[in-house]
Amino acid sequence: MASSASMCRTTYLHALASPARRANLGKAYIRLLRITSRCSRCYSVQTISKQDTRKQRVVILGSGWAGYSFARTLDPSKFDRIVISPRGYFVFTPLLASTSVGTLEFRAVLEPVRRLPGGVRFYQGWADDVDFSQKVIRVEANAVGGLPSEVLSSTVPVKPEAKKGDIFNVGYDKLVIAVGAYSQTFGIPGVRDHAHFLRDVGDARRIRLRVLSLFEQCSYPTSQGSSSTHVAEGSLSEADKRSLLHFVIVGGGPTGIEFAAELHDLIHEDLKRLYPELMPLVRITVYDIAPKVLPMFDQALAQYAMDTFARQGIQVRTKHHLERVRIADGVLGSAHGGLSIKIKEYSEEVNAGLVVWSTGLMQNPFVEHLVGKEFAIAQDKDFQKGEDAQRHRLVKDPKTGGILTDAYLRARITDSATSQPPPDAAGDTPKPVMSDVFVIGDCAVNENDRSLPKTAQVAAQQAGYLAKHLNKATQDGSLGAVDVSSTWKPFKFRNWGTLTYLGGWKAIHQSSADELRGWVAWVVWRGAYLTRSMSLRNKMMVPVYWFVSWVFGRDISRF
Amino acid sequence: MASSASMCRTTYLHALASPARRANLGKAYIRLLRITSRCSRCYSVQTISKQDTRKQRVVILGSGWAGYSFARTLDPSKFDRIVISPRGYFVFTPLLASTSVGTLEFRAVLEPVRRLPGGVRFYQGWADDVDFSQKVIRVEANAVGGLPSEVLSSTVPVKPEAKKGDIFNVGYDKLVIAVGAYSQTFGIPGVRDHAHFLRDVGDARRIRLRVLSLFEQCSYPTSQGSSSTHVAEGSLSEADKRSLLHFVIVGGGPTGIEFAAELHDLIHEDLKRLYPELMPLVRITVYDIAPKVLPMFDQALAQYAMDTFARQGIQVRTKHHLERVRIADGVLGSAHGGLSIKIKEYSEEVNAGLVVWSTGLMQNPFVEHLVGKEFAIAQDKDFQKGEDAQRHRLVKDPKTGGILTDAYLRARITDSATSQPPPDAAGDTPKPVMSDVFVIGDCAVNENDRSLPKTAQVAAQQAGYLAKHLNKATQDGSLGAVDVSSTWKPFKFRNWGTLTYLGGWKAIHQSSADELRGWVAWVVWRGAYLTRSMSLRNKMMVPVYWFVSWVFGRDISRF
Repeated sequence: MASSASMCRTTYLHALASPARRANLGKAYIRLLRITSRCSRCYSVQTISKQDTRKQRVVILGSGWAGYSFARTLDPSKFDRIVISPRGYFVFTPLLASTSVGTLEFRAVLEPVRRLPGGVRFYQGWADDVDFSQKVIRVEANAVGGLPSEVLSSTVPVKPEAKKGDIFNVGYDKLVIAVGAYSQTFGIPGVRDHAHFLRDVGDARRIRLRVLSLFEQCSYPTSQGSSSTHVAEGSLSEADKRSLLHFVIVGGGPTGIEFAAELHDLIHEDLKRLYPELMPLVRITVYDIAPKVLPMFDQALAQYAMDTFARQGIQVRTKHHLERVRIADGVLGSAHGGLSIKIKEYSEEVNAGLVVWSTGLMQNPFVEHLVGKEFAIAQDKDFQKGEDAQRHRLVKDPKTGGILTDAYLRARITDSATSQPPPDAAGDTPKPVMSDVFVIGDCAVNENDRSLPKTAQVAAQQAGYLAKHLNKATQDGSLGAVDVSSTWKPFKFRNWGTLTYLGGWKAIHQSSADELRGWVAWVVWRGAYLTRSMSLRNKMMVPVYWFVSWVFGRDISRF
Repeated sequence: MASSASMCRTTYLHALASPARRANLGKAYIRLLRITSRCSRCYSVQTISKQDTRKQRVVILGSGWAGYSFARTLDPSKFDRIVISPRGYFVFTPLLASTSVGTLEFRAVLEPVRRLPGGVRFYQGWADDVDFSQKVIRVEANAVGGLPSEVLSSTVPVKPEAKKGDIFNVGYDKLVIAVGAYSQTFGIPGVRDHAHFLRDVGDARRIRLRVLSLFEQCSYPTSQGSSSTHVAEGSLSEADKRSLLHFVIVGGGPTGIEFAAELHDLIHEDLKRLYPELMPLVRITVYDIAPKVLPMFDQALAQYAMDTFARQGIQVRTKHHLERVRIADGVLGSAHGGLSIKIKEYSEEVNAGLVVWSTGLMQNPFVEHLVGKEFAIAQDKDFQKGEDAQRHRLVKDPKTGGILTDAYLRARITDSATSQPPPDAAGDTPKPVMSDVFVIGDCAVNENDRSLPKTAQVAAQQAGYLAKHLNKATQDGSLGAVDVSSTWKPFKFRNWGTLTYLGGWKAIHQSSADELRGWVAWVVWRGAYLTRSMSLRNKMMVPVYWFVSWVFGRDISRF
C-alpha cells in the first residue's frame, strides 16, 4: 500500500486501463484486469511486474474480535489483507458499557480498520454470498445513506432491507469468515422494536441519549392536578416519573451486569447532583431466567456481586421470564416513550423507561445462507479437469447452527461416496475441509471442542492462532495451499480469566489461578483493559477519559 | 441549590405538599404552592422560611453566547438563575468547524448548562410566549423523543412542528431574552432541505459523517463499463466520484473560510493516506456573492487568505450567486445523495457531494411573535389600580426585525399619549422601557449603536455587562426595580479583534492594535481559544485532542 499511494496519484495505471489501450493490449490487458480487480485501482506497479510472486490475497469478512484481531496480526508484508465489514471500525466491546454512560467517549473504544498498520484494503459492506468454486465474494455496499448509527443498529436484522447498496465482487486466495452472531430475541414480542441492545457503538450512543433524555423529561414540573396558570404544570405525575426512571436490564451475564453497574455509577456520581429531586424515583432492575446471574463465576464471587448490587440498590430478579415489551399506555408511552413489560411471574405489567436486552446470540443470516448452499470446489480433481464436479456443503453444527471447523479452524465440508476428499485433508483426519477457507469467532464451531463459549477471548485467540500460523507457513509468498497437518498444532483455547465490573470501584475477577474481588479486582479490571489489543491512541485516551470523568464528572450533553 | 440537594432526598417538602395536608394548610398552602412553583419540588426549606428576602428569579431564554455567558457571570448567591433553552448545552462556536472534521471531539466544545457552578435550574424547551403583565413565560418542553441531533437541527425552523411537547409556565422577576437568530436562506430553493448548516454541534456531526461517508462511497471499485464477474464492479464512474468529492461552501465569512480550511486539513493530513487514489478527484470551492471574502479583514489580510487558499488548491469564487440546490440526477443523487447546484454565473449546473451554507441570519420566530403582540405591564399605575391598563408593544428595529433596547440593554416599548412612561424610565431618557426585561445577543438591537455586528463577541460583552451590573445593583436581594440611570454606564462594545484559521497551521488576526498572519497568527488563534470562556475540563481536553489529532490523525469512524 505504501508504494500504491505514490502510484495512484500518477495516471500510469489509469492510462494502461483506459478504453483506448484495452484493445491493443490483448492478453496483457486480461492479465492486468485480473490483477487490478484484486485491489481495484490501487495496486502498485511493483506488484504487477512481479506477478508470479505476488502476495496472497486474504479476504476477511467481519471487523469484530475475530476479524479485526486476525487482520491486525496477519503480516502485511506477506499477505494482502482485504477486510469486508458493514462497519468501518472494531469495537473494544468490554468497555462498551462504559461508553453507554459517558465514562468513556465512544471513539476511545473504536479502532478504524483503515488505520491498521501496514496498510489494508477495506470495503464497507455486507458479504452477500461466496462462490467457493470461483473464489469470489459478492458484497453489498454499505457506505451510502444517512447516519450509520441509525442504519447499523445491532438489532436483528442489522441490514435494512429497504436500502439496497451497490453489489460488487471481490476475489480471494484465502478467506476468513468472522462475521460473528446477532442478538437472539427468542421471538419475544416487542424486544426487537422497543428494547436496546448493547453490541455496537451505535447502541451505546442510543442508550446514553435515552438515559439522559429520561432524566431531562422528568425534570419538568410535576403534574399537580391543579389548574392555576401560575403554577408550572407538567403532564407527568410522580408515578409516571417513577415509571420512566425505571431502568430494566434483561440478562444477567457480564454485559448486563456491567451495564447496570455503570448506570448506577452515572446516576449516583453525576445525575444525583444535577437532578437531586429525582433520586427517590430511580430504580435499576436486572431480570434473568436462570437461578443465578454471572454463570461463569464461582458461587462465592457471584454472591459477592449480588451483595454489592443489593447495597447499591440494584434489584436482581432471577428466575424471572420476560414475555412481552410494549409501548406504555397513555401519554407515558405516546409522548415519553415509556414501556410496559410483562414478566411471567408477575400478574401486572411493569413500567420502564429503558429496557436493555443483553442475552442470547443467534446465527447471522449470512451464515445460515452459506451452510444451506451446495457448491463445487476448485481443488477437486473433477472440477479441474473441467468435468462436472462433486457438490459439497459446509457442515453445520446442529446445536448452534454455526459452521463446523477442523482443529486448524478450516471450514469442514460434507463428503460424498463418489468424491475424493480434498487433497490436503489426507492423513490423520480424513474429513474433508476447504484448505483456503477458515472460520473463526462466534460463527465458528470447532469440532474438537464444541463447548467453547462465544466470547471475545475465544475469538481473539482463534484469530491470533490462525494469523500466526499463516505468517509462519507462507515464507515464500507462494500461492499454494498450506500444509497444515505437518506443521500446525491444533487450536487450543486457554482461559485467561474473566473480569466483571460491579460499580462503585469494585469488580470481580476469576481465573484458573486466582479469584479477586473488590477494589483490587477493579484495579486489575482497569489495568487489563489498558494492555489489551488497543491502538496507542486509545491506550492514551482511555486513561485521560477516566481521569476527566473522575474529576469533572461524565458529560451529560445530548446531541 | 446546594441545600436543596439534601432537602429533596428527604420527604419533608413532599409531605407538606401532599394532598392530605393541602386541605388543612389553607393560606399557608397557597403561599407554599406559589414558592414551590418557582422551582418545582426542589426549593429548600430555608428559602421558604425566608420568603420575604428570597432571591430574585432571573429567567434566561437561550444558552448561546449571550444567554450562557450571562448565566455564567450572574452571581448565584444573589439571584436564582433559570435557563430555558431547546438545547441543554452551550456551544463554543469558534471551534465548531474543528469538530466537523474531527480535529476536536464534539464534547470538547460543549458546556452543559446544568453544570454551571453555583447551581442553576434548567428547563429544556422553547419559550413559546411571554406574558409581560403577569411575568410568566410559556414553555414547550423539548426533552422528549428521539435523538436530539435529528430534532435540533439549526435548519430553519428548528422546532419540529409535528412533535408538540408539554406546555408549562415559568414565572420571572427579571427576564433576559437571548434567543439568538436563525440561519437565513433568502428563500433559495433547496438550501433548507439539502444544504448543511454549521451552527450547532448536531450540524457538525452530520457534516463529519457526510464527508467521511463520501470518501467511503467513492472507495468502492469504479464502474468500468465491463461485465466480467471477476472484476470488482461499482456503480460510480470516475466522473461520479469527482462530483461526490466536490465540497461546496456558500458564504465567505469566517465560518465558511474556517470550515474550508479545516476540511482541507482533514483531507490532506488524514484522508490522503487512507484514500490515496481519490486525491486527484477532490475539490473544495467557496462561493460568495460579495466581491471579496472575509469582509471584516483588511484587504491585505483577505488577500493573504486568498493566496493561502490558492496554494492549498481551495477555489474561491466571489461574485457568484447560488440560485438553487437539488438532488442530482440518476444514481448519483438517488443512491449517493449527490447534489446539483445552479450558479447564476454558470450556464450548467455544478455537482457536489456536500453543500455547507454559512451565510445570513434571520430573526427567530419567537422574536417575531414578541414584537408583534400587545400587552400591559405590571408597573403601570393604571394596571396596579386594577383599571384597564395602557397597552404597549416591544419596539422592533425596522431593518433587522430585532428587539430594540436602550443603552442599558432594557427592552424598549412603545409609548402612548395617554399613558405615563414607566417610572424608571424618567430622567435623561424619557423613552419607555421595561425595567425587568433585557435583550442581548443576536436578537437585540441597541438603539445607541444599531450597527453592532451579530457576533459572539458582541453577545458575550453584552452578557458580561448586564450580569456584572445586576450583581452590583442587587446588594440587598430586594425585589425592586434596578435604578439604572444613576449607577449604570451605557453599554459600549470594544472590538477585541478577529481571528480566522486558514488551514495548514496558518491564520490571520486583526485588531485595532495589530495585524498578524501565518503561523504566528495560528499560535495566537490556538492560544486565544484556550483562554476564552470554557470550563476547566475543556481547557484541558482541547489541547489533548489537538495533540492526539496531530500525532495519530483525526478519527475517521462513523457511527
